[in-house]
Amino acid sequence: MEPTDAHRATFELGIKFGALYHQFAGTPISPASAAELASAIESAIENQPHCEEVSVGMKTEAIETAVDPDVGYTEFTGEFADVEILVDYEGLEARGVMEMDDGYPRMRLVGIDDTA
Amino acid sequence: MEPTDAHRATFELGIKFGALYHQFAGTPISPASAAELASAIESAIENQPHCEEVSVGMKTEAIETAVDPDVGYTEFTGEFADVEILVDYEGLEARGVMEMDDGYPRMRLVGIDDTA
Amino acid sequence: MEPTDAHRATFELGIKFGALYHQFAGTPISPASAAELASAIESAIENQPHCEEVSVGMKTEAIETAVDPDVGYTEFTGEFADVEILVDYEGLEARGVMEMDDGYPRMRLVGIDDTA
Amino acid sequence: MEPTDAHRATFELGIKFGALYHQFAGTPISPASAAELASAIESAIENQPHCEEVSVGMKTEAIETAVDPDVGYTEFTGEFADVEILVDYEGLEARGVMEMDDGYPRMRLVGIDDTA
Repeated sequence: MEPTDAHRATFELGIKFGALYHQFAGTPISPASAAELASAIESAIENQPHCEEVSVGMKTEAIETAVDPDVGYTEFTGEFADVEILVDYEGLEARGVMEMDDGYPRMRLVGIDDTA
Repeated sequence: MEPTDAHRATFELGIKFGALYHQFAGTPISPASAAELASAIESAIENQPHCEEVSVGMKTEAIETAVDPDVGYTEFTGEFADVEILVDYEGLEARGVMEMDDGYPRMRLVGIDDTA
Repeated sequence: MEPTDAHRATFELGIKFGALYHQFAGTPISPASAAELASAIESAIENQPHCEEVSVGMKTEAIETAVDPDVGYTEFTGEFADVEILVDYEGLEARGVMEMDDGYPRMRLVGIDDTA
Repeated sequence: MEPTDAHRATFELGIKFGALYHQFAGTPISPASAAELASAIESAIENQPHCEEVSVGMKTEAIETAVDPDVGYTEFTGEFADVEILVDYEGLEARGVMEMDDGYPRMRLVGIDDTA
């Protein structure tokens, strides 16, 4: 079937999730540095084409629990943030989230809105 | 509108492109090491859910041209590879490519096939 | 020869430079998002063992020049920032910089101070 | 104190460890794809200045244990590989390893040899 603008919107949304995760996974993170990393992730990914809004909610308690006191930090990975992304492709808005699902950071397409 | 399996297929396809690019951009690369990096990228991304096939064609000549002889290598980025990815989500096959377009590595949804 | 604390200090300093560069190379960046990325890089790498201070000076003009107006952003790489890092290993302070040198982002050991 | 060639050798060695870890952490990995990733990491990092040899030994059993059968892969991180790197800076050879130490992937300077 010929791709529609809604398919292109969800394709673009997927790109943002993959980019976000694989750019920043492995970044040293602590409860004290988490907020600055969240802001930088949001503004970095919002630079990408068709990206309207990125929201990164750091789970500070989970980060605190994961930090070995002898080491002082851990590495950013999917279990430490809830992410929501909104893409607008030619009036088609696609929205998705990344949330933990049974120990795995699941990226999920939530909905598509035709705002044209 | 309620997302269909075709929307989910293109969302999954986008994730693979974003992951591939942002995991491996910046990797030191030379004409001699390009083939091993291509193989590793293919088998790494094929691990991801619903990913059927990843094909990375390194542009060895472009890499060779970019390498400063005093340095001996350059960094992997979109201008050095053509990429094709095939995802299968519940019998819906989505296919995309990454190709240079006017100096920018454009990720493009090529088509969706209902193989069910 | 048996490594001394000064050798260990410079080893640790090198780790921070390699980590900084290869974690963040490829991040989408624009003149508007550069400051938040700089802050996040500094606080992320300062989490690492023995790392006293990281200073990232974004070259906003170079970023602005590199941004294709049709695309709106570019990717973070060594040409867009001057970096200075200070490590303290058992009272041995090692300091280094990353600066462009003939088109290549050169990481350079600047000095070692025994503060014990 | 003025840095010596031995200090520069250990600085360069550190760069390679930081680069290796933060370039490839987060890569999707499975027992089947681990060998190709190891080869690609070795040849990629050996491209870097003064880098003589990189050896990445994947811990296939640890990867197998970490893979959730419902997901089929995990992400590359320090617990899944032993790494050894040899740098030669002006006849000064610096050797280091990355090994797990109490749950943390410790990068350690092993020795310096003057081969000049």
